[in-house]
Amino acid sequence: MTETADYPEPRPPAGWLTKPDLDRVRAEVPMVYVDAIPVRVNPLGTVTAVGLLLRSGEDDTLSRALVSGRVRHGESVRDALLRLLETDLGTMAFPQLPASLAPITIGEYLPDGSSSLHDPRQHAVSLVYLVPVLGDCQPANEVLSIDWLSPAQATSDEVAAEMVFGQAELVRRVVRLLGS
Amino acid sequence: MTETADYPEPRPPAGWLTKPDLDRVRAEVPMVYVDAIPVRVNPLGTVTAVGLLLRSGEDDTLSRALVSGRVRHGESVRDALLRLLETDLGTMAFPQLPASLAPITIGEYLPDGSSSLHDPRQHAVSLVYLVPVLGDCQPANEVLSIDWLSPAQATSDEVAAEMVFGQAELVRRVVRLLGS
Amino acid sequence: MTETADYPEPRPPAGWLTKPDLDRVRAEVPMVYVDAIPVRVNPLGTVTAVGLLLRSGEDDTLSRALVSGRVRHGESVRDALLRLLETDLGTMAFPQLPASLAPITIGEYLPDGSSSLHDPRQHAVSLVYLVPVLGDCQPANEVLSIDWLSPAQATSDEVAAEMVFGQAELVRRVVRLLGS
Amino acid sequence: MTETADYPEPRPPAGWLTKPDLDRVRAEVPMVYVDAIPVRVNPLGTVTAVGLLLRSGEDDTLSRALVSGRVRHGESVRDALLRLLETDLGTMAFPQLPASLAPITIGEYLPDGSSSLHDPRQHAVSLVYLVPVLGDCQPANEVLSIDWLSPAQATSDEVAAEMVFGQAELVRRVVRLLGS
Repeated sequence: MTETADYPEPRPPAGWLTKPDLDRVRAEVPMVYVDAIPVRVNPLGTVTAVGLLLRSGEDDTLSRALVSGRVRHGESVRDALLRLLETDLGTMAFPQLPASLAPITIGEYLPDGSSSLHDPRQHAVSLVYLVPVLGDCQPANEVLSIDWLSPAQATSDEVAAEMVFGQAELVRRVVRLLGS
Repeated sequence: MTETADYPEPRPPAGWLTKPDLDRVRAEVPMVYVDAIPVRVNPLGTVTAVGLLLRSGEDDTLSRALVSGRVRHGESVRDALLRLLETDLGTMAFPQLPASLAPITIGEYLPDGSSSLHDPRQHAVSLVYLVPVLGDCQPANEVLSIDWLSPAQATSDEVAAEMVFGQAELVRRVVRLLGS
Repeated sequence: MTETADYPEPRPPAGWLTKPDLDRVRAEVPMVYVDAIPVRVNPLGTVTAVGLLLRSGEDDTLSRALVSGRVRHGESVRDALLRLLETDLGTMAFPQLPASLAPITIGEYLPDGSSSLHDPRQHAVSLVYLVPVLGDCQPANEVLSIDWLSPAQATSDEVAAEMVFGQAELVRRVVRLLGS
Repeated sequence: MTETADYPEPRPPAGWLTKPDLDRVRAEVPMVYVDAIPVRVNPLGTVTAVGLLLRSGEDDTLSRALVSGRVRHGESVRDALLRLLETDLGTMAFPQLPASLAPITIGEYLPDGSSSLHDPRQHAVSLVYLVPVLGDCQPANEVLSIDWLSPAQATSDEVAAEMVFGQAELVRRVVRLLGS
């Protein structure tokens, strides 16, 4: 039972939902998500490594994932991005959030598996950002480790097979766009 | 009473919500929206006119608006864009939907008026697209007229004052980006 | 001898260069180029086919290429794009030039083969655009045929091996960004 | 005589041009340029200040400018960006070069004043980037000072009137795109 509500208490703070409410809403409307691809860059801005999270899934299998989560009611996209990055990478990662919120691509996750991105819990539309991190990343909360892969490794078939929700599609779109 | 549910019947089709359900959900999570800015272009691709909708508001005042609406559960962003464009501009507009779904900017509408974009009904995050239309636009449904303004007029203070939800902000961002 | 000057006459029009002058300038500064990837789209804007040119090269081998060429002195990027599209696809192609000139990516062609894009003639920096064409494309001038490939074919290893100047890199970046 | 060659010596290094050669080439082909808009951002990525250079012009008047310059033959766009940023802001600025080289917009400078961007010396096509700087900026070489203006100031009519080459157009396009 790793699927949890935002907040398990009877009276959640504004913007948070209890697990039953979240489950119900997920069947009614698409959820607004952000997906962040953490990267290391050199002084010329060239991406040298892509950070993928290793997580323990519901059935104790390991899987790789992006920094990903929903935007809450009343929360700005920037606030959601920073909150999710700090939750997964710790507070010393110094992520460089984008100056322009125009995402590099969007992800459409459908629950029925009809698309390359799929999430059995919900229909979600995610804004995808590349986020250089300058500081020290420490796996936090449910993250077991953060693995820094070369761009070639991160877009390989082997890594794609380990990623949840078809997120390899997003990594490939974005990392390949950067060129070689 | 111009605020209507997606579908007034007791058993709406998949992805549609009754008015009470829509009102409830709007207080729980941000809604996924698309905003389309219809434009006329010349053979070089230069924008020659920006199409703004004239609508009759709840209190019978007239206001200008973009083609805008929510993405429904299970509906793709492309399907939502085409549905909304056909609803407002008619079926002969021949909108040229973008080949890449990366939006040109995003809009964050908050209900409390703390941002330049605001919507008293909800918190919405919109994907904003510029959509050239090649065909004949006929105001459909609740649209009284479609006015084609020059880029300079469309970004003027006069027109901004007539636009709902602070959408002038989006028109200005996008149209000015195109240059002169 | 397929390498020709813009204009072979002693007194070329403004912006054109004789072959010796063009050769000299190419060794002195990077050239401004535009690369256009012609595509067919369906009413939802989804790319259904990618158009690649089949050309006869200097040594009579066949090769595939993008619509590509230099921007001349005093010529706008939009004028250069339209001129090159008409030169290769004919005048009935009805290319839909982008409303925003921000390119989807850039290409850096170096003469020495140190990069994935290379052009033995010159150092060129190209602005890369995706250009939907609505009309009838007829191979014109030095183009033998225009082949419309599925996005999967256009990004395959087989097609990549047939493309000049490493341009497969650009097709892959752009077409994969569009998602599946 | 502030108009100088890249390198005044008889035998410049590769990619550099003597003043007479540069003048000649400028009349023959468009030049590849990069324009960087240095900005300060807060931890959420929001731009808090825009850095404009104060320069002493040819006739001893003061003017404001972007970090701007040409890409040399054989030089990558990333190398040119970093070289120009270090030339104008010093070596302790720690500019965060973009991970994706797709520019936020392009600038077309024409010598004849027919466009909002104009440069009497040449026809140039510039790739425009927003570059957050994290470190200490010290005016270097011909820069008298680096002034950090609020986004509202940087896009004001007063500042626009002080900028060279119509570059206010580029500041406005980019900074306004970021939203408020």
